[in-house]
Amino acid sequence: GYGRFGIGYMEDRALNSSNPTVDAPDTIIVSRFRLNIDASAETDAGVKFSARVRMQADENADTGEANAAGLNGARFSVEYGGLRVDVGNVAGAIDNLPNYYGNEPGLETFMGQYSGANYDFIGYSSGGAGVNGVYARYAVGDFAVAAAYDQGAPGTDSDRFDIHAAYTFGNITAALAYGETDNGAADDSDITVLTLGGTWGAFNGTLIVGDESIAGNVGQSDTFYGISAAYDVSSATTINFAYGDGSGDGDTRNIGLGVIHDLGGGVSLRGGIGESKVGNNDGVMRADFGAQFSF
Amino acid sequence: GYGRFGIGYMEDRALNSSNPTVDAPDTIIVSRFRLNIDASAETDAGVKFSARVRMQADENADTGEANAAGLNGARFSVEYGGLRVDVGNVAGAIDNLPNYYGNEPGLETFMGQYSGANYDFIGYSSGGAGVNGVYARYAVGDFAVAAAYDQGAPGTDSDRFDIHAAYTFGNITAALAYGETDNGAADDSDITVLTLGGTWGAFNGTLIVGDESIAGNVGQSDTFYGISAAYDVSSATTINFAYGDGSGDGDTRNIGLGVIHDLGGGVSLRGGIGESKVGNNDGVMRADFGAQFSF
Amino acid sequence: GYGRFGIGYMEDRALNSSNPTVDAPDTIIVSRFRLNIDASAETDAGVKFSARVRMQADENADTGEANAAGLNGARFSVEYGGLRVDVGNVAGAIDNLPNYYGNEPGLETFMGQYSGANYDFIGYSSGGAGVNGVYARYAVGDFAVAAAYDQGAPGTDSDRFDIHAAYTFGNITAALAYGETDNGAADDSDITVLTLGGTWGAFNGTLIVGDESIAGNVGQSDTFYGISAAYDVSSATTINFAYGDGSGDGDTRNIGLGVIHDLGGGVSLRGGIGESKVGNNDGVMRADFGAQFSF
Repeated sequence: GYGRFGIGYMEDRALNSSNPTVDAPDTIIVSRFRLNIDASAETDAGVKFSARVRMQADENADTGEANAAGLNGARFSVEYGGLRVDVGNVAGAIDNLPNYYGNEPGLETFMGQYSGANYDFIGYSSGGAGVNGVYARYAVGDFAVAAAYDQGAPGTDSDRFDIHAAYTFGNITAALAYGETDNGAADDSDITVLTLGGTWGAFNGTLIVGDESIAGNVGQSDTFYGISAAYDVSSATTINFAYGDGSGDGDTRNIGLGVIHDLGGGVSLRGGIGESKVGNNDGVMRADFGAQFSF
Repeated sequence: GYGRFGIGYMEDRALNSSNPTVDAPDTIIVSRFRLNIDASAETDAGVKFSARVRMQADENADTGEANAAGLNGARFSVEYGGLRVDVGNVAGAIDNLPNYYGNEPGLETFMGQYSGANYDFIGYSSGGAGVNGVYARYAVGDFAVAAAYDQGAPGTDSDRFDIHAAYTFGNITAALAYGETDNGAADDSDITVLTLGGTWGAFNGTLIVGDESIAGNVGQSDTFYGISAAYDVSSATTINFAYGDGSGDGDTRNIGLGVIHDLGGGVSLRGGIGESKVGNNDGVMRADFGAQFSF
Repeated sequence: GYGRFGIGYMEDRALNSSNPTVDAPDTIIVSRFRLNIDASAETDAGVKFSARVRMQADENADTGEANAAGLNGARFSVEYGGLRVDVGNVAGAIDNLPNYYGNEPGLETFMGQYSGANYDFIGYSSGGAGVNGVYARYAVGDFAVAAAYDQGAPGTDSDRFDIHAAYTFGNITAALAYGETDNGAADDSDITVLTLGGTWGAFNGTLIVGDESIAGNVGQSDTFYGISAAYDVSSATTINFAYGDGSGDGDTRNIGLGVIHDLGGGVSLRGGIGESKVGNNDGVMRADFGAQFSF
């Protein structure tokens, strides 16, 4: 896991945070403690079984106060050769898509190339129970395919699935994914997304482009696109960048620039600045700076 | 601890689960992550002090969704020679009675010989605070006695105690227990239970018989009885069986058959099928299959 | 961390506990399980980063039942040479003041020399999220200074800070602290506190004296004072004592006497007896006895 802490600024936080809180300060102490509790066993034939529960504490970004640590839902895995099957609180085929997230500037990784994508895919939950789904991935050589399924809660028609295929040639990886969420008698939600990512020496870059239709939200349906990059300016210092947007009126545009300075021993200083802007609304500036350490 | 996951079927789950949920699917993903957090210290004189808190995550059997992991109440222990005293979230003298549970078929151990017993004894809680009680056990040679006490919550007259004695002769263990729960001015609840268990090579069997009176529930009061067995059909495969019932109109009958196939390294495949039936109601079929691994 | 369990008595618990519960018994099973989950990393230059989350289970002192274990808010630390900075769920400069707590008799450390002090300083929370503050301490030789700051929740004017300075000469440590809590347009709360502590062979003693003004509570404002002592009567047995009081009508007087008997291996037997008395109200007797073990 890792720990990180520092200072985070959000322009007019009292209006722009997830759950706006009157008089919330713009600048707060941000932090995260994440500890993965892993357990595993291996059969005589070499099949590996494992399970993970995550313990995590975050600041409350709405008020600037802290939250107590909590436990999430368990994820179980079976691995053998190139095959991996996850059960429980799984990340799906889009959450696991290579180069979907790309480089995310900031201590809190608050800006991303995927900002124009609104489809609610099968995602791993760090703070709650998450889904109770299945994810499978099979990799052979440079090629991999993956699929995930999550049955909606009783009384809803929200069954979801997603799939991806990824191919690596030289220092470039290309990946394509599709996901669909049932919506009963009404139109379903779906997403198609293509990513490209490559590394050339001290530079790496990613690209995302896709199309989605979000049930009941015309403003978020349509194409989305983004790019990200990172460059090692010295042996210890990396700068990164992300840009994401979509063609819909309700899409979110992200532009961010960040820096990571490695102090050795798994410790780094990190900071970023960026703007998040929904459709024609005013943009919201964000910035942060702090330390992160792995353990 | 251990992890287990697989598929579980319950006939008409939407009607028959603990908290029936409209439209709940009959077949769901079942899972459990159980991690015992143990700590101990030993005095210069060899008295061992220890404490346990359990971290556990289970599926929500009512909806088929998952639950986040949680922590239970702490149990503290002192051990010296043949004496053991537990304090806090304790299992009582019936919960600890040899051969009370017997062989329980299924990945989820969903059928048991004790199904006809309804007395609410002092039990260890994996998911909650549990009782704040005391349990003591003293073993000398082949003989052991145990007793537990739990004071009811303020404003209730629900003080409980239970005791047991167990004797092992050759490959057979016989045990007798008695428990009583105060019920204020009304009739108390009580239980008397006798168990037998033995092992003969690849076979082991258990038997339970008892009598209980449950305050305010005539249909569950009266005798109960059951048997269970397990047989190693090969070095890696064991089949097991359980049957339990009671003479009361409100008693639950369990019949179950299961199989455990050992894959080595603490990993096994497990499955079972059985029927649970309350009084003259329709029986409810259950079946499951999956993997379990210890760590 | 440590575990402790035993018997605790409070005179008329049903009237005198924090959340009085009708029919609560005077004598209950008391217990605590405390496990510190620590993680750390160190940069190449020797700066240490660390984080702590505490897992703790306690009895419910209002009812005599148990509580399930829980997690608190995370605390992050940076240490380099004599400097230490804590962020998140921090203890402030009064909570960290040398000899503030002194010797606290009883398994539950239920009596203390600080009983006359009512100021609500920045304190570490073992059971909740705690503050989201900053604490810094710098020590050079025998001298140390510390300061802490906690911004009040949005919509309140309750920003707090506290500072201390401590000096050790020979076997005596003297320390002085000041803390202040904003109260908007009304009078602020503040505290000034001086402590002395020293060790002479088998004896150690502490003294506290201070002055506070508590917003909206004249009866608790004014001076407070107390002393505590501990004496090793043998190589394994220590007796301790605490007395605290204040000049205000609403101040709490504590008088307590305790004993600690070391069993080796980090295990000890502990007990105490004392009286807590608010102003002219009747005093409340408390007593406890049990075992504590470190791990």
